[in-house]
Amino acid sequence: MASAHESTDDRNVCGREMLISAEQATAVVIQALANVGVPDAAARTQSDLLVDAETRGLPSHGLLRLPLLVERIRNGVADPDVVGDHRWAGDALLLVDGRNGLGPVVARAALGEICARARTTGVACAAISASNHLGALAWYVRDVAASGQICLALTTSEAIMHPHGGRLAMVGSNPIAIGVPAHPDPLVLDMATSLIPMGKVIDYANRGAELESGWARDAAGEPTTDPNAARAGSIAPLGGAKGYGLGIAFEALVASLTGSELGTRVMGTLDSIHRPNKGDVFVVVEVPPAAVDPVSAYLEEVRASPPADRSEPVAVPGDRSNRRKREALQQGLDIPDDLWARVVALGQPGDARYADAVSAPI
Amino acid sequence: MASAHESTDDRNVCGREMLISAEQATAVVIQALANVGVPDAAARTQSDLLVDAETRGLPSHGLLRLPLLVERIRNGVADPDVVGDHRWAGDALLLVDGRNGLGPVVARAALGEICARARTTGVACAAISASNHLGALAWYVRDVAASGQICLALTTSEAIMHPHGGRLAMVGSNPIAIGVPAHPDPLVLDMATSLIPMGKVIDYANRGAELESGWARDAAGEPTTDPNAARAGSIAPLGGAKGYGLGIAFEALVASLTGSELGTRVMGTLDSIHRPNKGDVFVVVEVPPAAVDPVSAYLEEVRASPPADRSEPVAVPGDRSNRRKREALQQGLDIPDDLWARVVALGQPGDARYADAVSAPI
Repeated sequence: MASAHESTDDRNVCGREMLISAEQATAVVIQALANVGVPDAAARTQSDLLVDAETRGLPSHGLLRLPLLVERIRNGVADPDVVGDHRWAGDALLLVDGRNGLGPVVARAALGEICARARTTGVACAAISASNHLGALAWYVRDVAASGQICLALTTSEAIMHPHGGRLAMVGSNPIAIGVPAHPDPLVLDMATSLIPMGKVIDYANRGAELESGWARDAAGEPTTDPNAARAGSIAPLGGAKGYGLGIAFEALVASLTGSELGTRVMGTLDSIHRPNKGDVFVVVEVPPAAVDPVSAYLEEVRASPPADRSEPVAVPGDRSNRRKREALQQGLDIPDDLWARVVALGQPGDARYADAVSAPI
Repeated sequence: MASAHESTDDRNVCGREMLISAEQATAVVIQALANVGVPDAAARTQSDLLVDAETRGLPSHGLLRLPLLVERIRNGVADPDVVGDHRWAGDALLLVDGRNGLGPVVARAALGEICARARTTGVACAAISASNHLGALAWYVRDVAASGQICLALTTSEAIMHPHGGRLAMVGSNPIAIGVPAHPDPLVLDMATSLIPMGKVIDYANRGAELESGWARDAAGEPTTDPNAARAGSIAPLGGAKGYGLGIAFEALVASLTGSELGTRVMGTLDSIHRPNKGDVFVVVEVPPAAVDPVSAYLEEVRASPPADRSEPVAVPGDRSNRRKREALQQGLDIPDDLWARVVALGQPGDARYADAVSAPI
């Protein structure tokens, strides 16, 4: 990558020589996880989730999460050795006690079961409790849809959103993801039910910028454009009543099926000391193979329809993310220096200083 | 209701003596359906759906739909005698060929099957093709949730929404409804993925009012505030990319499972001559009875949280609709005179002039 060759490609690479390759990031994350006792297969799964988010332009779900995760493992509130306890409540409903396992490790194990089950039952659902942060939901539904099944994913979060017509943080920003099989790539939607992500508030605070009116309220429930006041307060739901409606419906649905906590009692995805008590729900549905061609043709029609801005073709959910990933795999990941330094420090080869703290009581 | 008594209640009623009682509306709708050959049980189901929407402040899904439905039955594109053909594709996935049946009749029959099946499988799904307009989805999920199961409902519509970043109508306003068991009433969300309903555009056109900027585009794809231009064009998705993402994901999901048409090829819910080729999907999930109390307590916490406007308490999805229904059942339905006159004309007792046209070819 540091070649001084004068070809166009090399200039391109040379001009970005501070970028980190995805392979390099993956290796360092796996080592950092190994250093706190994460078994190799689990470390590869967790690392793939985090690095995939970086490549897709979702830094809030990328390497930024690693230091907190390492801290949670050290504190014994994330257990890298478990995949969750499975119990079938009926032929098509899998209840999973995540036993504080790593989010993607527990979810992948559950998805493996329900994807196989749906091949005979037509539809299957997993309700997961006590599992750590899932990261970007798109990662899960994309895989299932690429294998030919529809996947719907819901997860809850700490209460950071105020109700439509309310003042205080009472609801998670509870995202939904949907993957639908299509050529050349599945349709992949992944969106929070809040107007903006809390990560955007934090980013504005770091840059000393002002929020737009209507984005947030402060801790007392008053509208604010001060990002620091908003961090202690709440963000607005998407589109007022509708985003709030989706958010609270997902909160109630997920808690009904998983027994997860609700509202202000949800903890364990933003802190380093609480056991995770949010919930995750996945639904997988079998798709007749003949359905894929007409759906793919429709998505092409939408892409080919006239754009509002002639320089920006109409996209289908997942398109921009896929393009970013292809670019990032060629050009490297643009990770802030201070974050990369922290990740590298955690990923020093053979550094097992945290390994015996994994099972320490909190 | 026309008593001249001077009590507060009577004054209230006397001041609204032009209102129609729900019982009266129901009787007239049932007669109108009987007049075109709809069997009694089916007429009661269809009537309950339409009158319920009127009581809940959803006139666009109420009696307004009756003349079109009668016309569709006369034209042979809505068949009141069928409940749909059922085929299980696996233990938990029911494929329904609606055979042009009435939307609520076909959907109720399918829901009866999957609600029963979910009691043993944990989750069950119905994918319905070739069925007429479902009306308000809330009506279905409320019933299921009141009986203790979670229900998720999706249906597609004619393409009336432009993509985020697009100019032309390519996607239905594809709504989602979710019902979650709770005391004293289930949580019931029912929302389109468009920013505004097309019914609002029509209402503005009727009143000669101007649309707000950003709500719609004309047939050529240019932004417009002229409601008549918007009727021939498209409405915007909720919150830009997210509403568009939900709408197109639901369109692809429903078509994948039901084989329904997609985008601009969807017909048969707004016209009187085309067989219905949209699709409907219901998912029902079993809920542990112990989950209902914590969810209900959380919803109460949200209702009791401080409101933005002190005169307007925070509501949970379904609250306002339930309050409106209670008021309407006491006070009567406020139906426009011209619409009521059309409904009454269709519901003349013993008027069977359309009965033999039911099976006429189109």
